[in-house]
Formats: sequence, structure tokens, C-alpha cells
Amino acid sequence: MQDHVRERRLASADHRPPPRGFAQAEYEQRTARAQRQMAAAGIDVLLLTAEPEVRYFSGFHSQFWESPTRPWYLLLPRDGKPVAVIPEIGAAGMAATWLDDIRTWPAPRPEDDGLSLLADALRGLVGGQGRIAAPLGHESHLRMPAGDFQALRERLAPTPVVDATRLLRNLRVIKSEAEIAKIRHACRLVSDAFEALPGQIAAGQSEREICRTLKIDLLRRGADGSPYLIGASGPGGYDTIIMGPSDRVVARGDILIIDTGTTYDGYFCDFDRNFAFGPPSDAARRAYDVTYAATEAGLAAARPGATTSDLWAAMWSVLEAGGALGNDVGRLGHGLGMQLTEWPSNRPGDDTPLAPGMVLTLEPGMTFAPGKLMVHEENIVIRADGAELLSRRAAPVMPVIG
Amino acid sequence: MQDHVRERRLASADHRPPPRGFAQAEYEQRTARAQRQMAAAGIDVLLLTAEPEVRYFSGFHSQFWESPTRPWYLLLPRDGKPVAVIPEIGAAGMAATWLDDIRTWPAPRPEDDGLSLLADALRGLVGGQGRIAAPLGHESHLRMPAGDFQALRERLAPTPVVDATRLLRNLRVIKSEAEIAKIRHACRLVSDAFEALPGQIAAGQSEREICRTLKIDLLRRGADGSPYLIGASGPGGYDTIIMGPSDRVVARGDILIIDTGTTYDGYFCDFDRNFAFGPPSDAARRAYDVTYAATEAGLAAARPGATTSDLWAAMWSVLEAGGALGNDVGRLGHGLGMQLTEWPSNRPGDDTPLAPGMVLTLEPGMTFAPGKLMVHEENIVIRADGAELLSRRAAPVMPVIG
Repeated sequence: MQDHVRERRLASADHRPPPRGFAQAEYEQRTARAQRQMAAAGIDVLLLTAEPEVRYFSGFHSQFWESPTRPWYLLLPRDGKPVAVIPEIGAAGMAATWLDDIRTWPAPRPEDDGLSLLADALRGLVGGQGRIAAPLGHESHLRMPAGDFQALRERLAPTPVVDATRLLRNLRVIKSEAEIAKIRHACRLVSDAFEALPGQIAAGQSEREICRTLKIDLLRRGADGSPYLIGASGPGGYDTIIMGPSDRVVARGDILIIDTGTTYDGYFCDFDRNFAFGPPSDAARRAYDVTYAATEAGLAAARPGATTSDLWAAMWSVLEAGGALGNDVGRLGHGLGMQLTEWPSNRPGDDTPLAPGMVLTLEPGMTFAPGKLMVHEENIVIRADGAELLSRRAAPVMPVIG
Repeated sequence: MQDHVRERRLASADHRPPPRGFAQAEYEQRTARAQRQMAAAGIDVLLLTAEPEVRYFSGFHSQFWESPTRPWYLLLPRDGKPVAVIPEIGAAGMAATWLDDIRTWPAPRPEDDGLSLLADALRGLVGGQGRIAAPLGHESHLRMPAGDFQALRERLAPTPVVDATRLLRNLRVIKSEAEIAKIRHACRLVSDAFEALPGQIAAGQSEREICRTLKIDLLRRGADGSPYLIGASGPGGYDTIIMGPSDRVVARGDILIIDTGTTYDGYFCDFDRNFAFGPPSDAARRAYDVTYAATEAGLAAARPGATTSDLWAAMWSVLEAGGALGNDVGRLGHGLGMQLTEWPSNRPGDDTPLAPGMVLTLEPGMTFAPGKLMVHEENIVIRADGAELLSRRAAPVMPVIG
């Protein structure tokens, strides 16, 4: 790890939670940046349907998205503030944001669940260029019935609905300092909890009990929740990083991984830690050391001018030299922020240039023996002079419990 | 409340958590029921993309859906087991289900993220009728890039992709006893925690602290998590049931509502409770009594032969007679199960006939003064002879704290 990284970590060791929400200026800047791109691309209106997209421009932050019943729409015109076209139940919550133009319908109303209101609003905002854009591309989906989207396109014809994925990606991959502060806080809470965990768990407990202990500790420390918190274990190594926790009882000789996406004020951290129960096998210890070294190589390579593919190459060369038999994750880290995973991907061919303000995970992992994985993960933000760690670096030697 | 409801509640007061997962026979039955409907509707293959749809037929249960990066596909042919077309990272997890035919690609691969593999698999399964169906209708969305769905349709032409919403709804609205047991368990944990809450909280705490206390208590009692847990308060009444919790400090004279969708093994409960801090105003007390009585009317009306619209009418007539100024929720309850809210809706015009095995919320609510709401909620399952309560009935008199 570079010295300046360690120094910055000390300098930012402020333990107060950052304020909730954002200043209105933050939404104004996001909107202005989007509108400049829209003008350049000849787009009149952005049509947004998914929770992070609506929240990004409006500040509307509600758990109610957990209910799939009602669609919600945010329209970003070429000039001025975003326009909300939403179910009546959301009117009061949306009125508390910086938006002025809030149009509602009595949802649910399956025969016309906001569709005519939405079509009218879009028609009113389409100007000279005559183009609407919505995210239609990679890592996106439309959170509205597909049949309604088809009907909307037909109603709006000949006005086309083109893809806005690149535009949104360009905006969202660069985080503001206020966004970074929320991610850093989530990282700090999880770093603290991971470091305290060995004193709270023991062989003989199930993966589920151990994960519950961590989840409760995170809430006590001030996390809002852990929408992603998996645990997987096995003798000498684990064989998954996306399933679990199960009722499997962890025993001496096991390696346990816990990986969590824990949130503070709508922003995620996403990193894991590995624990040995009793002295680990030589193979597991070696795999830990190799993966740790791969993370170091990723940290050293993470600076403006390099690309996500360079990050992959820096980490993979260490893993390969260390005996990696393969990796089925498809990448060695990714963006994060309002979602557990965001663009870009650290993989060959991604080639995204790193730029200051990008928040990324470095996630080297490998199969080190048949059916045995070792995966490490850290969270960083790209600065002008390199990587700033947001997570507190994993122990250089695998922690041993019991 | 009817006597038989109380009796059944006692009979089912078994406090052991139900087993996790389902017997293979459950998936076989779900598949056979779908295939009978497909044959009747002339559909060759169902294309499924969303978490609950994939889990319903395969049993694949992972938190990894929190990452929006990779699409996952499940194909249900007219005969035989479902076919999985999924990212490589999911192969081991899917292999542990009852499925045999699992096809993977190295995701993420933006230039072809499973699309050609999916198109080939669909072509191989389309038979004489030449029709594919996917959920395109109300309360559904496709969890895949909209651009990929468009490209898929073009590749498959002239084979049409028709709407499967009604088919899936018909299946999923009727729960098996094993599904009901999971929902009942989530309801029991939340009922216990709501009843214990007044002893754990006090005026002077923020909504956020109070909700955190409840969330931790639920985890300790054995809940898997609370993806939805909102709290809202105000002097003499609250003005939202979908925002919060905030840092607002609850004071004497306030009414607090907490509403939670808490899960056990992938199944939700969804109900709320109201608390007064100090003696409530006459208006709030009256609103509580009216809403309680509306729930009673809903419970009495909930039996096979009645419809969801009858439930609405039974509850709304009590609310209206009790001085309701309006309701912006758009319905007075809904289905629930694998999702916080599912079809149907208790509203005029829904007209879904109630049938044994349907799990519903009764959620009467009203504006009783400008900017002041009162909302109650209970969870029930429809039985041959009426409603069985899954949540433990709210106190007939508003609980007072302090």
C-alpha cells in the first residue's frame, strides 16, 4: 500500500456520521450535467423508472420501492427541474424534495396505471429534436410493465425512445464528495464490525447465526441495513460467494467468507473478509496471501490514466502466478454507490479510463483447488494521485478464530 | 373476530420455525399447474427474468439479485423441468436445486450478455404452437435490459412473445400450506416484537432509533431481515405511511406508526401497528377505533364467494361512516407472499374472487383530519369457512407509551 493512501486514511478518520440527504445544489449539479449531455446528444427528455435513477435526480428516498405494484416515473427535460409522474400515495414524500412539478394518479389502476398521464407529460416536454431517451442498455432495466412500455412507444410514435445508458453511466460513475462520504461511512462501520467479529463468534455456530451476529452489530453501530450479507464456509475453503448463509455449522478446519453490501443513507459499501477456524491449511493460507498480494497490485495500479482493464490485468497476473485455476465471477471488481454493483467492471475489454471520484471495488478471487475459492475485496475512490482506501485494509495474514 | 378464527389461531400456535426450502414435490406441482395453463393457452415456453419468478419454479434463493449487473433467465417448457440460462457465477447454486438443464455464459459480457444463449434455448423449446410468453402486465417488470428484450423479439420473429401475467398471477395468488407456514412464522415474529416494543422505547427517541430497536429485536427473534420497515410520527397523527424513519424525535402527544415487511425464508409478512405517546387526542382515539372496526368488517367479509372488491366495500363503508376524509393508498389491502405486495388489490373494480389459500392484507386507512392518517393492517389466509389471521390481532385500544 502506498504511503499517501495510509496518510489520507488517518486524515479522514472522522467518526461522525455524515449528514443525511444532500444540499439542493447537489441535485442542481446532477441535473445540469445531465442536461449538458442531453443537449450534446440531441435528447429532449430523459424517462427514468428505477429507484436509483429517480433518487439520483430528485432525492426521493423511500423503502416503498419494495412494493412492485405501482410504477413511478421521473422526467428530466432539457431545461429546468425534473418532473415527477407518480402514484398519489407518493405525493407528500415527493413534495418534500426540491421538485415543483409533481403529477399524480390514483394508483393502482391497472387499466391505465399512469400511462396516459405519462404520455401527456412526455409529449409536453418533447421539443425541437423530438427525441426521448431511457436506460435500455447494460446493467439497466425498466421498472414498469413491459407491455406499458410498448404501448407508450406506440402512443409517442413517431418520436423515438433511444438509449440513455451511456449518459447515465457517465454521470453516476463519478461520485461527489458528499456521496463518497456516505460510502466511506458505510465502509467504516463494516470495517469496525469485521474487526470485532472474531471475538463474537466461534466454531460450532451456523453460518446463519454468525451472519445474524454481524447484521445486528452493524445496526447497533449505525448502519441502516445490510441488503446483501452472505456467508459461505467449507473445510479448507468455500465453494460459492453468492449463496448462503445456510444452517451449515462451521467447524475447526473451515474457512468462512462473509461478504456484505451494507448501507448508510442509500449508499452501499461492498467488501468481504475471510476467517479461518483453527490454523488454516497451507493451501488456504497461500491462497489468502496471493489474493492479498493481488489486491496490493490493484491498489498500486488504480490511478487516473489507467483503465478498469489495467486493474484486471494487474490483479490477474498475481493470481495466475500464484496458481489460480480460474474465476467464475467474470470480473475482479466493479463500481458501487447507490447500488451494490454499478458500472464499470474490472475485466478485459471494459477499458473504462479511471477518473477522480470513481468509487470501485477491487475484488481479486480465484479457485485455488477444485471447489475451493478465495476472494478478497476492498473499496476505493480514485484520486488524482492514486487510490484512496474507503474500507480498512484486510489483515495481511488470515485471521484465525479459536 | 369470529370464534373459529380465534380457535384456529390457538391450534396453530406452534412456535418452531418451519423448515427452510420446499420439498421437490412443491416445485413439481407448481410446474405442472403452470404447464396445464400453458397447454390451455397455447403457450410453448414461459420466459422468466425476475427474482420471485425464478425462485418460484426453481427454488434458487440468493441475495445476489441485489446486484443489477447480470440478467438471469428461467425457461419453463410445455413439458419437463425448467431450464436455467444464467451467469456462470450462479452455476453451483443452481445445480443445488431440482433443475437438470443449466446453461451458463461468462457474465458480465455486455456485447452479448446471455442473449444468444437465451435465443438458442428458446428456439429449441418452441414447438407446434409457436408462442412464447413472459410477464408483460400489471405489477410485473422484465429484469433485463429493455434493449436486449427488443433484440430478443427481433431474433425470435415471427414467434411472438405474449403476456403471461394472468397465468403467473393465477398460480401465485394461491399459496401452498408450506408457503403459508413461512408467512405465518414471519407474522408471529413481528407480532411478538410489536407487542414487546412499548417496553423498549420512549418519547425522546427518534423514529430512526425506535425502528432500529425493532429491527434488531426481529433479527434476534429469528427473522431473516426487514426489507421494509418504516416509521412515521406527528403530533396527533402522522402524514405518510411510505416515508421514514427520519431523525424526528417522538414526543408526548405524538402518534407513531410502524409498518414492516419482514421475511422468513423468502416470504413476507406485511402489517403495521400504531402507538400513542401519552394519552391520544379524542380524534386520534376515534380514528383508531374506526379503523379497528373496519378491519373487523374486513375479517367478517373475507370468505370464498366474496371478492376483493367486497372486502374494500366492507371496510370502506365503516371508514366512511366513521368520518374518513379520503385515502390516497388506492386500495385497502393486497396479496402478499414472496413479495411485500402481490396481486390482487382490495379495491373497487378488482373483483378477484376470494379462494382458499389466498394470503391477503386487510389495510383500512383514512385521513381523519387534514394531514393526519390512521392506517391499520392485518395478514390473513382465506380458508373454506372464512379468514384465518396470520398476524396476531392489533390491540382493540390504541397502545399508550409513557
